Amino acid sequence: MRQVEHIRLRKSMKVSDLVKQMDATGVLGAGKIGEAAKLVGEIFSDKDYTTFLTLAGAMVPAGFRHVIRDLIEDEYVQVLVTTGANMVHDMVESLGYRHMVGTFSAEDVKLKKQNIGRIGDIFIQQEAFQALEKWLYKTVEAIPEEKRKRISAAEILREIGEQIKDKDSILAAAARRNVPVICPAFVDSIAGFQLWTFGQDKTLRLEPFLDLNLLMDKVYEAKKVGIIMLGGGVPKHFALFANTFREGVDAAVQITMDRPEPGGLSGASLEEAISWGKVKPKGRAVTVVCDVTIAFPLIVAAALEST
Amino acid sequence: MRQVEHIRLRKSMKVSDLVKQMDATGVLGAGKIGEAAKLVGEIFSDKDYTTFLTLAGAMVPAGFRHVIRDLIEDEYVQVLVTTGANMVHDMVESLGYRHMVGTFSAEDVKLKKQNIGRIGDIFIQQEAFQALEKWLYKTVEAIPEEKRKRISAAEILREIGEQIKDKDSILAAAARRNVPVICPAFVDSIAGFQLWTFGQDKTLRLEPFLDLNLLMDKVYEAKKVGIIMLGGGVPKHFALFANTFREGVDAAVQITMDRPEPGGLSGASLEEAISWGKVKPKGRAVTVVCDVTIAFPLIVAAALEST
Amino acid sequence: MRQVEHIRLRKSMKVSDLVKQMDATGVLGAGKIGEAAKLVGEIFSDKDYTTFLTLAGAMVPAGFRHVIRDLIEDEYVQVLVTTGANMVHDMVESLGYRHMVGTFSAEDVKLKKQNIGRIGDIFIQQEAFQALEKWLYKTVEAIPEEKRKRISAAEILREIGEQIKDKDSILAAAARRNVPVICPAFVDSIAGFQLWTFGQDKTLRLEPFLDLNLLMDKVYEAKKVGIIMLGGGVPKHFALFANTFREGVDAAVQITMDRPEPGGLSGASLEEAISWGKVKPKGRAVTVVCDVTIAFPLIVAAALEST
Amino acid sequence: MRQVEHIRLRKSMKVSDLVKQMDATGVLGAGKIGEAAKLVGEIFSDKDYTTFLTLAGAMVPAGFRHVIRDLIEDEYVQVLVTTGANMVHDMVESLGYRHMVGTFSAEDVKLKKQNIGRIGDIFIQQEAFQALEKWLYKTVEAIPEEKRKRISAAEILREIGEQIKDKDSILAAAARRNVPVICPAFVDSIAGFQLWTFGQDKTLRLEPFLDLNLLMDKVYEAKKVGIIMLGGGVPKHFALFANTFREGVDAAVQITMDRPEPGGLSGASLEEAISWGKVKPKGRAVTVVCDVTIAFPLIVAAALEST
Repeated sequence: MRQVEHIRLRKSMKVSDLVKQMDATGVLGAGKIGEAAKLVGEIFSDKDYTTFLTLAGAMVPAGFRHVIRDLIEDEYVQVLVTTGANMVHDMVESLGYRHMVGTFSAEDVKLKKQNIGRIGDIFIQQEAFQALEKWLYKTVEAIPEEKRKRISAAEILREIGEQIKDKDSILAAAARRNVPVICPAFVDSIAGFQLWTFGQDKTLRLEPFLDLNLLMDKVYEAKKVGIIMLGGGVPKHFALFANTFREGVDAAVQITMDRPEPGGLSGASLEEAISWGKVKPKGRAVTVVCDVTIAFPLIVAAALEST
Repeated sequence: MRQVEHIRLRKSMKVSDLVKQMDATGVLGAGKIGEAAKLVGEIFSDKDYTTFLTLAGAMVPAGFRHVIRDLIEDEYVQVLVTTGANMVHDMVESLGYRHMVGTFSAEDVKLKKQNIGRIGDIFIQQEAFQALEKWLYKTVEAIPEEKRKRISAAEILREIGEQIKDKDSILAAAARRNVPVICPAFVDSIAGFQLWTFGQDKTLRLEPFLDLNLLMDKVYEAKKVGIIMLGGGVPKHFALFANTFREGVDAAVQITMDRPEPGGLSGASLEEAISWGKVKPKGRAVTVVCDVTIAFPLIVAAALEST
Repeated sequence: MRQVEHIRLRKSMKVSDLVKQMDATGVLGAGKIGEAAKLVGEIFSDKDYTTFLTLAGAMVPAGFRHVIRDLIEDEYVQVLVTTGANMVHDMVESLGYRHMVGTFSAEDVKLKKQNIGRIGDIFIQQEAFQALEKWLYKTVEAIPEEKRKRISAAEILREIGEQIKDKDSILAAAARRNVPVICPAFVDSIAGFQLWTFGQDKTLRLEPFLDLNLLMDKVYEAKKVGIIMLGGGVPKHFALFANTFREGVDAAVQITMDRPEPGGLSGASLEEAISWGKVKPKGRAVTVVCDVTIAFPLIVAAALEST
Repeated sequence: MRQVEHIRLRKSMKVSDLVKQMDATGVLGAGKIGEAAKLVGEIFSDKDYTTFLTLAGAMVPAGFRHVIRDLIEDEYVQVLVTTGANMVHDMVESLGYRHMVGTFSAEDVKLKKQNIGRIGDIFIQQEAFQALEKWLYKTVEAIPEEKRKRISAAEILREIGEQIKDKDSILAAAARRNVPVICPAFVDSIAGFQLWTFGQDKTLRLEPFLDLNLLMDKVYEAKKVGIIMLGGGVPKHFALFANTFREGVDAAVQITMDRPEPGGLSGASLEEAISWGKVKPKGRAVTVVCDVTIAFPLIVAAALEST
């Protein structure tokens, strides 16, 4: 048994030094940050890993667009499994719209009148989504009709990624790097509803099994699988369950504020995941109970240092 | 301003009396239970309401199959929006399998060896899912191939519901009562993965826009919409966003352990929902921060009393 | 292993029936409510138990004054370990002041101007505390000066309880039933600060070891100890640690929204308590993760039924 | 309204750079870290501030002894308000005992047999507390009996701090720097119980009003008050309520995993604190919902950079 080492803070210390000290404590949240950073560092350094990143919550609105984009661009991530919303917000930023710093205690009736949508303390003009609709219609219409008769969300998102000029875009980076963007509940996003409208008079048949084909190819061809889960939701479950077809992932890190007690999958422990074959019995797994926007940059900055 | 009335407990008191007293406190969690029960009671009593029930988390495994089934059977609920998992667990119970009382502190490597999957402190034999697969293949194969070329998850679930003999089944009740079972991320469930396998050699093309058609019909034809959300996730967002097409729901109750601070939609407040047009500016809305398995039966039992 | 029984709700069902059904599920929050109610029922029925009730949080402001008062009056509780605040609020209600139903989203600068203090969504006039001060000075001054030279908070609270005419008062019931009111951080309450002011020109020397004497007498003389903890804080720790002197409590129920992960004692598990000798290795213990104002009346109403 | 700037991570980046980027997002948890770091930086840079640090939770066991000690030694903190436990753990480390890296899923019955106490995933030998008792008796006995007839916990802790040779000790640094260590519920700690035993045959009368004298001197003489609250509990309330005597603190930062909804003071918002006069109506206040062991070092390391 090793002892808890006490943290010492210094002016100008590097993130990786702080995380190393957190790791040296070995306990509570700080200890988990340290453990997670080491594991992510290993995954990032080992070419045998196929790394899945899952996104739930307001990652793009909250200022994590570049972080995710860079992880894809720099080839640390091979598969992105995400809510539709995060990709919608990537698109609207590509169209030049910006998320604004608002407040949790806003008067929402007033925001509604001002055509502002609120996500926690983040504001965004509804105008952004009107512009998105126009652009989306045009972009999807450019896909050959034959292809639109049976298409996965991932293929649509790839076509979109190829059209986006904004070099900061997640979808553009994913298209460039050939990283599939798997969105199992794509229909449940603003873009999903807009494409449903599009599909009222134009040809467009989304077929989720085609997304699953793409995901399973990645699962089957992987030597080792590492997974980093930001929040829970469908992305967490879908990516983990797909990996039961290869006896589970080898390494898993989840960052979440959800807990096991209420029984939902979002808060489920990674031990529980072993019982289902989602994580290998000898797999390594770290759960960090923390706001993702605080823990994730700490972990990534420290992990990058070790690559 | 009214005063906080103190609760008085008596032997043999009725649930509805307790909830009335909670309502008379008017504050904290108990106050919210009271407020939610009144609102649900109103929704249940007013024939003008189309009531949406959304399910996330382990509601069926946790013993809420009858409660949900009865709400459908007794025509209190007109639309069910759910995770695939809850319907999977309804099916396996229909096949005679049971969920077992386990423990959170199980040894998961051992459970894996025993072919037991764990959901919090609930255990289930993996055998149940093998039986499900066999039965599902047979049931889906019985659907005419022509129909299987373009089919919604809701149609499949309806066909399944019609085949289920078990009178306690949610899907059977929904089929009987013509309540659409909307499952926007159906592919992300054990049944979804099994049908994907089925689709490798047989015809089966799921098309989520067809589910959205069904959902939107309900949205458009409703005089008033009431929504009861158990947990968050895709069901919460999908049902609420669909209602932006009619300027928002009139009455909303959510029960969840998630909070707004981390920024995810699951924990988002119903005030925030107003800014997006998901809840009407003059709509009534109650959030109960509580384990659903505790709060929901209290609220329903009290609401039924007032119908 | 027993199976999860599904809940069935009926109009006019009794609280104890609902709780029995929750117990029959055996899992998640509902299962814990059932388990806790059985254990509390046993403690209440067995005369060998000395029962400790610990209070943190806004129990009196939230409308739980009678519930606690009745448990003392009806001799279900033999020791009360509490924050000072709860007793302060018992006193101001005895003086005729009332807590009001407010809102979480109040404008606090405005409340300040209106001399209203806010506790979550509960409002109270500051005037109540001015009246309290006057009354407290008078009441404490009536205690013989000799006694005031070395006095426990418990003795002061007992004197106060004896002076209170209001039959609904917790302190009055405790004085009547000879139940010690142990308040280990009494100085950290409005009454504590007021008595500190009193002590500037009058004799008053609080001595916390005298409170501990009283508490330890109860610990030592108990055949069996049962403890019900509402929230965490100093009351939880103080009552549990005192019981290490008798090898731990025999039965423990805690209701809290706090969790173990951040490492504080308030969220600590009752398993952890075994390692410290606070709970006997063979002691029975149930943790309910729930808002106390929801879970506690359910548990008590059901437990009373079984007495 | 400013826009959410996206974080960019780089190898070898400094903590202060990361925190600046978090601040540039301006939203969710990361935004709060940024805001808190700026405010703490201002407090630390402005000599007019009297800074209160409050400690709850397992800060010393978790590896934060040096961080706290350094903040005192380097004169960033003028008043420490703490649980007794944190000081107990400072003392046992001074005696050479160490906290060990354990696990949350320990078998506590086994730990009990091995005389190991568990705090979350931290282990400590009970032997440490036996050694503490011996040392404490000796140290307190060395205090002149006359003084022991009426003594504050703060005076005892100061005497202890003067006796501790270990330069890493919080108590030693506090004694050196003349920083009062206010422990309003000192009796509720292992040392408190041990001194109660001591007091059975030796003279020792703790008087909490004397602690309050010390605290109020600091409150009254302060030009400005800044407060940093790690967790909630009695330390949070005591320090805030003391400041109502000067119309509230000027600047407040709290880091906690507790939330307002259950109604307890630990999770109470700093807006609510305004209604009570604990925070000035124009005071600046930031709440960070995060595990303290993660957020606090980030905030302090960044704040130090700006001093």
